[in-house]
Amino acid sequence: MSSIFENAIKTPGNWLLENGPNSDIVLSCRIRLARNLKNELFPHYIKKENSKKLKENLKKIISNCASLNNSEFYEMSDITHSQKMLLLERHLISKELAEKEFGMLAVSSDEKLSIMVNEEDHLRLQAFGSGLQLSEVWEKINKLDDELAEQVEFAYSEKYGFLTACPTNVGTGMRCSILVHLPGIILINQLKSIHKAIEKLGLTIRGYYGEGSEAIGNFFQISNQITLGLSEEQIIDKINNIGKKIVEHEENARKVLLQESKIRLEDQIYRALGILKNARIISTNETMSLLSFIRLAVDLKIIKDITISTLNEILVFLQPGHLQKIAGKELSPEKRDFIRAKMIREKFSNAN
Amino acid sequence: MSSIFENAIKTPGNWLLENGPNSDIVLSCRIRLARNLKNELFPHYIKKENSKKLKENLKKIISNCASLNNSEFYEMSDITHSQKMLLLERHLISKELAEKEFGMLAVSSDEKLSIMVNEEDHLRLQAFGSGLQLSEVWEKINKLDDELAEQVEFAYSEKYGFLTACPTNVGTGMRCSILVHLPGIILINQLKSIHKAIEKLGLTIRGYYGEGSEAIGNFFQISNQITLGLSEEQIIDKINNIGKKIVEHEENARKVLLQESKIRLEDQIYRALGILKNARIISTNETMSLLSFIRLAVDLKIIKDITISTLNEILVFLQPGHLQKIAGKELSPEKRDFIRAKMIREKFSNAN
Repeated sequence: MSSIFENAIKTPGNWLLENGPNSDIVLSCRIRLARNLKNELFPHYIKKENSKKLKENLKKIISNCASLNNSEFYEMSDITHSQKMLLLERHLISKELAEKEFGMLAVSSDEKLSIMVNEEDHLRLQAFGSGLQLSEVWEKINKLDDELAEQVEFAYSEKYGFLTACPTNVGTGMRCSILVHLPGIILINQLKSIHKAIEKLGLTIRGYYGEGSEAIGNFFQISNQITLGLSEEQIIDKINNIGKKIVEHEENARKVLLQESKIRLEDQIYRALGILKNARIISTNETMSLLSFIRLAVDLKIIKDITISTLNEILVFLQPGHLQKIAGKELSPEKRDFIRAKMIREKFSNAN
Repeated sequence: MSSIFENAIKTPGNWLLENGPNSDIVLSCRIRLARNLKNELFPHYIKKENSKKLKENLKKIISNCASLNNSEFYEMSDITHSQKMLLLERHLISKELAEKEFGMLAVSSDEKLSIMVNEEDHLRLQAFGSGLQLSEVWEKINKLDDELAEQVEFAYSEKYGFLTACPTNVGTGMRCSILVHLPGIILINQLKSIHKAIEKLGLTIRGYYGEGSEAIGNFFQISNQITLGLSEEQIIDKINNIGKKIVEHEENARKVLLQESKIRLEDQIYRALGILKNARIISTNETMSLLSFIRLAVDLKIIKDITISTLNEILVFLQPGHLQKIAGKELSPEKRDFIRAKMIREKFSNAN
């Protein structure tokens, strides 16, 4: 099994290394499309042998897609638990897929475009981009969708649109989201009003790890709830617009902080750096909270010898699966906190 | 007015720069003697003009003492509020003396031997030493006491011993104390049993700033309560013995920490260093707590490029009066927290 696992602790996915538009505040954007084949039962109901056949059939079909012509395939039955953890932490597979006997992942070498096969739906297409560039990401995933549609017939109703295993995805089958970093808004205590504005638009705001997760490190995921009754372009427009407004709010909040409490802000930033450069034991949550101050400081050019790419690397590498890969063995949570602290000290050894 | 104020922000008193016996745990020891002149009313009752005369008379007498032949005199009426703060913070005068119109301090240039005139008693002799060396300190102060007694007659009763303004000092008029640093005992949660042992011996344990003060930075003052019915040597023996026992307990506690939770301890130490080297705003209490870890680390040779002298300098310089001297002006508490953080960063700039 090849490059993703080999490179896992050298680099995060490319979409985390690039500098897309507004990527100081909008870390990344993501679109996923749920698709099912006509004349096949949804994965929950399908028979084992058919599920296997479907997987093999889809492997050929995906290989024919120009968008994924350099892609790699990972079959869940062929990879280890540790390897599944790495794919999970890189947002390439879901927990649900990891447990599926005939689950499969197809992924481009830059990790920006991928397909899960036999998850909740037959096909889950996913595209990532750096910053706020949903139109570009949409163009890509739409092309892949077309390439698939040329080869298979999707379950589709003139009335409802694309049919999906879960009714909440019926229609466009699209979930469109942005991951935003809002330390300024949090520090000046304005999240509540942002929250209200987002809900009014029928969108949702969640923590870093998506559905049901806490807000850690001042990261938030904003995504559409509704997939029915709106076109793909309308959904993208909505998220794009709220993204732009949030960027504006966050920039204002940062200005206020610099004007009204610069020394206090610098104190928080340098304390965070001091701890990250010195801790011998550190949890994921504490790391995320402290990194938020460093990210803000880099954005504000208060800290100049750390790059956003380094911060994004840490964001991926601090997770259990990646730490185990770094250590070359399974680790207890206590040992992970130790290896995490060591990895961070090394990454920041030259930062002042 | 000369050297103490000029040197105040260059060096703390000599007793804080030397390495006395066990000074890794017993920072310093101190003896004070309360004395009053026969045939004079106690300072609370004396008439102004007599108080002034007394001060002038005592100045001559003190000048004649060989032990203080290089001493400097500071009259409270001649020095500024800021200068009084410096003397207070260097433990050379009390708040009570600072407010006395005819209060006077005589102090040796190394700050190890001093006399307050017209405080609660006519004379308060004080001697400091580094580490646990009460006998040496007693020898010194006893000699000064003799030199005074050759020139004046003290208020003394065959039955009670030395008579003092407050009955709690009658007898020897002696308060003997040691300042101990007990991070190990605190970290393994054994202070309570130490507390009990000390109280059983009729001694008291208090925080860093003595009577009524909180325990900050894991510093504690242990001193005698009783001045009556015990000889000076007996009091010194008691404090000496408890001092030795506490040193043993603390050393054991440190061994336990190194054996059972070295990584956790190192984590606390390096986090403390990281904050001290990076904070832009820091309070006295936080500084004291963090410095306690650094002191422990230097004692345990975990940190090698910081000296105990540097830590003792910071301990003196972090106080408001010294910070104002560093800044060259009066400072609000907020500004002090800023200047304190700056001073500490400079002191630790080369430490790793």
